[in-house]
Amino acid sequence: MVVRAFRGQVPDAERLERVPVWFMRQAGRSLPEYRELRRGVAMLDSCLDPGLASEITLQPVRRHGVDAAIFFSDIVVPVLLAGVRVEIVPGTGPVFADPVRSADDVARLAPLDPAALAPVVEGVERAVAGLDGLAPDGGAVPLIGFAGAPFTLACYVVEGGPSKDHLRARALMHAEPGTWAALMSWAADVTGAFLRAQVLAGASAAQLFDSWAGSLSLADYTAHVAPWSRRALSHVADLDVPVVHFGTGTGELLAAMRDVGADVVGVDHRIPLDEANRRLGGTVPLQGNVDPALLGAPWPVLEAHVRDVLARGRTAPGHVLNLGHGVPPTTDPDVLTRIVRLAHGEEGPPA
Amino acid sequence: MVVRAFRGQVPDAERLERVPVWFMRQAGRSLPEYRELRRGVAMLDSCLDPGLASEITLQPVRRHGVDAAIFFSDIVVPVLLAGVRVEIVPGTGPVFADPVRSADDVARLAPLDPAALAPVVEGVERAVAGLDGLAPDGGAVPLIGFAGAPFTLACYVVEGGPSKDHLRARALMHAEPGTWAALMSWAADVTGAFLRAQVLAGASAAQLFDSWAGSLSLADYTAHVAPWSRRALSHVADLDVPVVHFGTGTGELLAAMRDVGADVVGVDHRIPLDEANRRLGGTVPLQGNVDPALLGAPWPVLEAHVRDVLARGRTAPGHVLNLGHGVPPTTDPDVLTRIVRLAHGEEGPPA
Repeated sequence: MVVRAFRGQVPDAERLERVPVWFMRQAGRSLPEYRELRRGVAMLDSCLDPGLASEITLQPVRRHGVDAAIFFSDIVVPVLLAGVRVEIVPGTGPVFADPVRSADDVARLAPLDPAALAPVVEGVERAVAGLDGLAPDGGAVPLIGFAGAPFTLACYVVEGGPSKDHLRARALMHAEPGTWAALMSWAADVTGAFLRAQVLAGASAAQLFDSWAGSLSLADYTAHVAPWSRRALSHVADLDVPVVHFGTGTGELLAAMRDVGADVVGVDHRIPLDEANRRLGGTVPLQGNVDPALLGAPWPVLEAHVRDVLARGRTAPGHVLNLGHGVPPTTDPDVLTRIVRLAHGEEGPPA
Repeated sequence: MVVRAFRGQVPDAERLERVPVWFMRQAGRSLPEYRELRRGVAMLDSCLDPGLASEITLQPVRRHGVDAAIFFSDIVVPVLLAGVRVEIVPGTGPVFADPVRSADDVARLAPLDPAALAPVVEGVERAVAGLDGLAPDGGAVPLIGFAGAPFTLACYVVEGGPSKDHLRARALMHAEPGTWAALMSWAADVTGAFLRAQVLAGASAAQLFDSWAGSLSLADYTAHVAPWSRRALSHVADLDVPVVHFGTGTGELLAAMRDVGADVVGVDHRIPLDEANRRLGGTVPLQGNVDPALLGAPWPVLEAHVRDVLARGRTAPGHVLNLGHGVPPTTDPDVLTRIVRLAHGEEGPPA
């Protein structure tokens, strides 16, 4: 049903009964079974262990009954597989031994050898096999392939880790347009190959995460970022899977993010879905946008918010319920399960 | 001239010749003379030492020839003076010993004793005295009073320090509206008193920083934040000084931020000033919006960007050039001086 919703093919009557739902970062620290499996295993090691990555991918489907899995990985995985030294430091995020800041640094970046993607391919294949039979009707729950957009990847490798305003990366964009283009071209092909491998291995949809695009003006996004996101998505354009494009703080960029080749636009909590739909001309299925901050509120407050999101989502040609950002680690997983029941029409009328 | 620009009273012919300019965080780590003065002195101690705070306030005026000083302080200063235990940890930001997270925590917050503001009053008085004679015509350079908006303060005290999405603070907003209102009311009066003291001591304008308002939807801003920002500004409403209201990522909130009682709206780098002017109905003077990321770009790239900002600023009824956010610590101060010369028409025609 998720895939039909991504394609805007769910009839209105069905949409009134049941809206498909999954959660960004549903496979993660909010789940005790995840924390148990990850014990003693470094993040990037777990991503590259096909058994672990596939099992972690399945956990939230079993627990919550969500309508889609998303492949458990990290956006720096293809960068690591291309030979860049990076580790994920708990509490900090990705940290790079050698930030990429000059034309020489960019020239040293190697393309991704497709053979290096073997553990990803195997992880996806195992996840897809495990998802078969998990749907309520005994069918398969679809898997969504996962990849970071070139801009967000470029921010990480230039800054050398997470950053607030991505000043170094955005400076490079303007100061050395040629170096920037070379870096973005590399990032687009690396992350595009990563996404393509997942789809070829059985993913039924793909999501491109441009987490930090919201730090850009529309002019900068259009001139210096969109062409490379388009290039990343060109790697899956022939594969007939719907593509979701997501970022936070991207209310000004929604149409530009669609125009790089996305079928569905993800919306964070900052603008209501009916307004997002209006900005997209009423032609694009949407994904989102429950405010993660409300997951800790009393259920009646959260329920009213989710019902409001669902109502506004009905204005768009398709809607897949999700959060406006990833599940916070402190989230009570039972709350997520209850949101799934609500989206599926199993919670009864409002209190 | 800054004050006339804030009021939209500068004739077009004059605006073509010279645009007033200052920089958020112009008094700070980008200046070697600042780093020298601050050596061995904790941030909040320097804010509460009238001699140091006033001298630091003057430094960028002497060096860059900016058209305004802004009082050197920190947005948590009034919170500290109200008895809340907070320190500023270098590299991290404000850290609170006891985050405020419950109705009981909020009930324990004490109002700000006006007597506690004595070091701020003396610092402002000394800065104003020092600014006399620093203008090119031998007159006084105006001082802008400085305060954080209640929402940004509330984020700090609830989270216990800097945070990315302010989830705890935004959860409290929805989960316990009464507790939230009590907290925001306290924050509004504390920061309002801080700002009023600066104006009474000689500041010619005031700026309210709601650095994190951009994390909010317009609906949340309007319902849960704007009333308290209005209350904060009510503390200076009778004093006949123009008020600037600034945040980052606030393209969706510009009109709401004006409507709390601001005369001027600050705009970050994400939307061009002509678009901000359009959203504000062409009736509000603007401040901004050079992208801090471009400060490290080669001068011709930065110059073209500043000239573009100046041209778009001319569409508004008034424009004070500034950055879209604070000066990054790594900025070459000579670049800031050159931007001042450019705004003042002293750089000649474009290369």
